[in-house]
Amino acid sequence: MTTKTRSIVSWLLTASLMAPSVHAADALPSWNDGPTKSAIVAFVEKVTTPASASFVPPAERVAVFDNDGTLWAEQPMYVQMAFVLDRVKTLAPQHPEWKTQQPFQAVLEGDFKALAAQGEKGAVELVAATHTGMSSEEFNRIVGDWLKMARHPKFKRPYTDMVYQPMVELLAYLRSNGFKTYIVSGGGVDFMRPWTEKVYGIPPEQVVGSMGKLKFDMIDGKPALMRIPGIDFIDDGPGKPIGIQKFIGRRPIAAFGNSDGDQQMLEYTAAGSGSRFMLLVHHTDDAREWAYDRKSPVGKLDEALDEATAKSWTVVDMKADWNRVFAGAP
Amino acid sequence: MTTKTRSIVSWLLTASLMAPSVHAADALPSWNDGPTKSAIVAFVEKVTTPASASFVPPAERVAVFDNDGTLWAEQPMYVQMAFVLDRVKTLAPQHPEWKTQQPFQAVLEGDFKALAAQGEKGAVELVAATHTGMSSEEFNRIVGDWLKMARHPKFKRPYTDMVYQPMVELLAYLRSNGFKTYIVSGGGVDFMRPWTEKVYGIPPEQVVGSMGKLKFDMIDGKPALMRIPGIDFIDDGPGKPIGIQKFIGRRPIAAFGNSDGDQQMLEYTAAGSGSRFMLLVHHTDDAREWAYDRKSPVGKLDEALDEATAKSWTVVDMKADWNRVFAGAP
Repeated sequence: MTTKTRSIVSWLLTASLMAPSVHAADALPSWNDGPTKSAIVAFVEKVTTPASASFVPPAERVAVFDNDGTLWAEQPMYVQMAFVLDRVKTLAPQHPEWKTQQPFQAVLEGDFKALAAQGEKGAVELVAATHTGMSSEEFNRIVGDWLKMARHPKFKRPYTDMVYQPMVELLAYLRSNGFKTYIVSGGGVDFMRPWTEKVYGIPPEQVVGSMGKLKFDMIDGKPALMRIPGIDFIDDGPGKPIGIQKFIGRRPIAAFGNSDGDQQMLEYTAAGSGSRFMLLVHHTDDAREWAYDRKSPVGKLDEALDEATAKSWTVVDMKADWNRVFAGAP
Repeated sequence: MTTKTRSIVSWLLTASLMAPSVHAADALPSWNDGPTKSAIVAFVEKVTTPASASFVPPAERVAVFDNDGTLWAEQPMYVQMAFVLDRVKTLAPQHPEWKTQQPFQAVLEGDFKALAAQGEKGAVELVAATHTGMSSEEFNRIVGDWLKMARHPKFKRPYTDMVYQPMVELLAYLRSNGFKTYIVSGGGVDFMRPWTEKVYGIPPEQVVGSMGKLKFDMIDGKPALMRIPGIDFIDDGPGKPIGIQKFIGRRPIAAFGNSDGDQQMLEYTAAGSGSRFMLLVHHTDDAREWAYDRKSPVGKLDEALDEATAKSWTVVDMKADWNRVFAGAP
């Protein structure tokens, strides 16, 4: 082997063995330069630099993301709520009694005041009617089919186009730096798993969420997991750190949210030893998206915003920090 | 670039881009040649050969393993039961009342007949006394410390040495062929997670098991997950496919068990489309390990063995198929 050959071979081997070093300048194009982007990059470089005192081995690089309002839009209502309302309309011909039976009547007549008056009991009935009585696999198909045809009421685009491009880039940037990215959402786990891999690059086994009860049953001699009425787990607020322990079994080193429902997840992440990164997406852009926080019925951000200020967590100012909002934007 | 350089470079690139092809002859040395080993190898080659009609993309190569009796020994009692008994003795000085209070008195006096008479209620009390009242992290430490000092009553070796070498090789062989390996065990998830990565190469987030209730709490101003009395999930029998759906969200293509508690997991795996592999470890070696099946109070294998025969699932004859049993054997 000539010296030149040897040096090329050596270069190739080194290049192929090195962990891919992805620079934020290339990886986060939808983030404007400024303190928010710098804080993200500084954290990732610190924990991935072997010589750094803050180095974290790849196996422990767990990053958790809320979904509604953090990875995709949650206004004017949670996407899963839009699914419930559509689904009631789709199923209505098989349930003539719903025309005069609450909470279904309210949904069919578009009477949101009457719907709100039904409270939690009404919500539980709607979820049972739309989310149970079929196998897990059938429900996957129902959700997948709905997402193909449903359009956001304001933006007239598929909901999966309304994921935040800067967050999609952030997920990929973290993964290219050895992080394992998880969703930890108050939403239903089976409402997310059919599409998170394609849209976010997050496989079903890395989605933690709320869930209903399941029953192992034999249907036509074949085993099936049937979705039955009843709540098994609510992955919201203090439920989020519990969900993390149940499903992941490791404390994350980075947590990303946007509302008070993410507060305990960020607190739990912050309380571990070594370097930590906590971020809140603050919805400040009423031109390109929405502006809301302390008084919003959806995605209320109040106590967690105060805690973020007090503890110097990173807060994204959507209007200032993002030069692009939606992945599917023209 | 010279032609020679180019060809070396091209060879190196090809070699580095190719998926590692691991041959069973090298990867499964503790398995004797024969139909069992051949069935394993045939399945893995079939689902990993891109040109094969049975090819399965890496993301769907999910393999699930029972733990007790499948990956490590479960005789004369489940290891977690040995932990409970030891732990009661360790805690007894702080609980003088246990001397005359069942089920604790029975444990302290080694009176297994009196213990059995306490039934399920006694078991629940023992688990509550030994598994709750501390944070998840404290419990991790307790389990880790116990495993360091505890010894198997017959073999006088650490329990983590009593994992089956052929199964450890099988786990590694599957992973080197792009499989994601999971534990799906009736045992407590937090009793396994502290050591499965080191012993099996299975990280905490790929361990599914039974679990108790958790509570998010502030202890000295720091958030902690406290273990509180109450069962959250029993991952056994029909609970295993439910656990798979809850925690993994994909149907496995391969499932490995050893008892009737694994029957529904194997049935659920078998019922998917495409190539499937179901295996039972049959304990047939009373010289090197134990021989037990239909009548055993621990790891009873009766109906599942009949189903395996009827459906041509693979059954390991431990005595004939394994030339070495324990990973820690001399």
